Amino acid sequence: MFLYGESRETMMHVAGLMPFTPAPGTPPDHLRRLMDEIKAGAEVFRPWNFKLRTPDLLWNPLQGWVEEANVDREYHVRRSAVPMPGDERELGILVSRLHGSPIDFHRPPWEAHLIEGLEGGRFALYVKVHHALVDGFSAMRVLSNALSLDPAERDRPLFFSIPPPAREPRLGDEDGGGVHFPELLAAVRAQYGATKSVARALMNVVQSTRAKDHELVSPLQAPRCILNARISRSRRFATQKLETARMRAIAKAANGTLNDVILALSAASLRRYLEELDALPTGPLVAMLPVSVRAKDDLGGGNAVGAILASLATHVADPAERIATIVASTKHAKQQLQGMSKAAIIQYSALITAPSMLQMIPTTAGHLRPTFNVVISNVPGPEEPRYFRGARLEAAYPMSIPVHGQALNITCNSYAGSVCFGFTGCRDTVPHLQRLAVYCGEALGELERALL
Amino acid sequence: MFLYGESRETMMHVAGLMPFTPAPGTPPDHLRRLMDEIKAGAEVFRPWNFKLRTPDLLWNPLQGWVEEANVDREYHVRRSAVPMPGDERELGILVSRLHGSPIDFHRPPWEAHLIEGLEGGRFALYVKVHHALVDGFSAMRVLSNALSLDPAERDRPLFFSIPPPAREPRLGDEDGGGVHFPELLAAVRAQYGATKSVARALMNVVQSTRAKDHELVSPLQAPRCILNARISRSRRFATQKLETARMRAIAKAANGTLNDVILALSAASLRRYLEELDALPTGPLVAMLPVSVRAKDDLGGGNAVGAILASLATHVADPAERIATIVASTKHAKQQLQGMSKAAIIQYSALITAPSMLQMIPTTAGHLRPTFNVVISNVPGPEEPRYFRGARLEAAYPMSIPVHGQALNITCNSYAGSVCFGFTGCRDTVPHLQRLAVYCGEALGELERALL
Repeated sequence: MFLYGESRETMMHVAGLMPFTPAPGTPPDHLRRLMDEIKAGAEVFRPWNFKLRTPDLLWNPLQGWVEEANVDREYHVRRSAVPMPGDERELGILVSRLHGSPIDFHRPPWEAHLIEGLEGGRFALYVKVHHALVDGFSAMRVLSNALSLDPAERDRPLFFSIPPPAREPRLGDEDGGGVHFPELLAAVRAQYGATKSVARALMNVVQSTRAKDHELVSPLQAPRCILNARISRSRRFATQKLETARMRAIAKAANGTLNDVILALSAASLRRYLEELDALPTGPLVAMLPVSVRAKDDLGGGNAVGAILASLATHVADPAERIATIVASTKHAKQQLQGMSKAAIIQYSALITAPSMLQMIPTTAGHLRPTFNVVISNVPGPEEPRYFRGARLEAAYPMSIPVHGQALNITCNSYAGSVCFGFTGCRDTVPHLQRLAVYCGEALGELERALL
Repeated sequence: MFLYGESRETMMHVAGLMPFTPAPGTPPDHLRRLMDEIKAGAEVFRPWNFKLRTPDLLWNPLQGWVEEANVDREYHVRRSAVPMPGDERELGILVSRLHGSPIDFHRPPWEAHLIEGLEGGRFALYVKVHHALVDGFSAMRVLSNALSLDPAERDRPLFFSIPPPAREPRLGDEDGGGVHFPELLAAVRAQYGATKSVARALMNVVQSTRAKDHELVSPLQAPRCILNARISRSRRFATQKLETARMRAIAKAANGTLNDVILALSAASLRRYLEELDALPTGPLVAMLPVSVRAKDDLGGGNAVGAILASLATHVADPAERIATIVASTKHAKQQLQGMSKAAIIQYSALITAPSMLQMIPTTAGHLRPTFNVVISNVPGPEEPRYFRGARLEAAYPMSIPVHGQALNITCNSYAGSVCFGFTGCRDTVPHLQRLAVYCGEALGELERALL
């Protein structure tokens, strides 16, 4: 389904940006040596050697994965450098550009970029993966889990050279936050059957969504907003890293969850940003967020990802009142979700993980009043520091997929005592995206002053 | 017509790579300052502010240029850096990658990249322009003419901020080597009329070409060769810079032209390269090359670009005998071209400047026996050294367009006593492209030993 959404403007790849601090004494040409090592014969394990069976006919009903016997490592792994002064801004520009170029479907759909030239001899790894190969919720976890817990381990290869475990890993086991793509796709396929036309299947999703919207979030109606316009091909990316402990203290004071604080910080940032552009809607913005639920009819022990719509209370000026409204809204939505069947939850999952499906009905794209204004997701990541050959992973920022009608995406990933925010937006529809990241950081202090 | 050929694999943009040696005392952050200056308000003059009227419908018969009032300078001008050690190889990799990404048709179709991090504090300018905006024969000239003759001039802006002359410059006046794209397009349009279908027009070109081929190059028949396969989306680019004086000495000894020497060097390089891959055809490779001619029915004073097919004599082992065969072949072809009408010459021009047209008939792409194996062109450039704010232009390498069935393109540009060769190829169809550049350089000494 992610393939159906692929077009020049809406590219269905997700990515992760991982800056590292090298160990003392690391030679300045260490990335060049790493590249030489990879070229000399790094192994490429599944799924990183999977490519599409019919890349020129993405919609082919016989589409599937085949193994590429001879993965061109020099194509998939690339070196880059940021221009002077090598600050976060220059890194953001480079990564926005890398994120804006499409993936070649004639090869395994991923790229890894070793980025040097950051201030203080630091470097970064940027990995781009098509959503069809590794879904967005798992991508960051797969990448960080490929790193080492041991700063002294110096010969660990990059993620694609790490053999897969004997049994297929069940993502979500660890903390219930993920859903495995093949599982999801199989379920969606079973629901719609292989013979139904794609258009029909899409209409089913849209219609059932509308019906469920009513049931689920009856009090909410997303206002028209500049975030819900058509997008261009260019991306902007901005990051923010905040201490989990500070956010948990606020969650406790507000009688809510860490997710509620993420929503409140996003809400404060969006309110200030849209106000400055003189584009703040009078009604509250509506966020769609994936949550982990257990369905009432699910006899197995697994979790599923459901979606809820929550008010961001952007019409409320007072920070304390705003977060209280958000907490109430998400509580209400989650209670309703508990009563849903697994099939209904999976329909939501499909809609969330492939928001582009709505776009497939050409007339709706960027024209209809949106069901929600922005997708905000939070994916749990490792809590212990990770290393690559002694270099410490500083942060792990997820980059997601803006589509027509959803020009901004906020995705968070927790890592080693921090929440790493990734703001991915359309360069033209969401100008000065960097401000959203800055305001998000400033909103934390504001909430502390209001609540603690 | 160049727009019709646009697809993910065959992108119709040309480019120039221009390395510079900065003046002594240039501050290390000079490119950052230049970027700040451009962002602060550099003007963008025509044609650099032209964009397509209907970018989502390239084939629209009402397609045309409109002026973009608000050119996003930060989008079109970008900073990049090469990773360590900043040598020609790393520059080649970066530029290949930049050349492999498509141009956004929703904006004026050009990009300029300021590339830092080259050895010895050097930098480079890489400019990508869609063929429909500035044709390949003029692009390098437009770019180098925008530079200064005066090393002391320190406030000259980049090419897009230089106002166009009062009257449209007639390219080709200077040395007869160019043809102005709008003129060509207008002529082609007049020939086919606006109402004829594109498919019909294309068939006309193909059929007349076949008829003319027979008339023109009857003794030549291009052999099947790996260069004439389908291509992928990735590019490789390699460069070579050779002294014009050395090449002229060989031309004189061989009783030929500078172009003949370019062909002989390309032939020697291709022979050695293909032999190593065990893929040298038994018959001689056939090159298509644009030449400047005056048609028999042209009453005006202008020149036109015609095309000739010439044998590369790659079946001949002896360098002296090989260049003699090439000289005889080009002489014969040029004599025949003199007898052609201007209309016929323009048909050839269209075919040469947009080789993708043949690809538009899907079944022929990469399957039919090729009419020629490789396009080799030579575009005269400025003979005096050029400067940008005191930085000396070292060389000006043209990058051209591989298409399905023509996976390699050799384009030369003369500059300040040198001939700059640009080898643009498909990364997958033409492996180890760098070797072609190296062998081309070594062939010069070989010819000197054989002839002088």
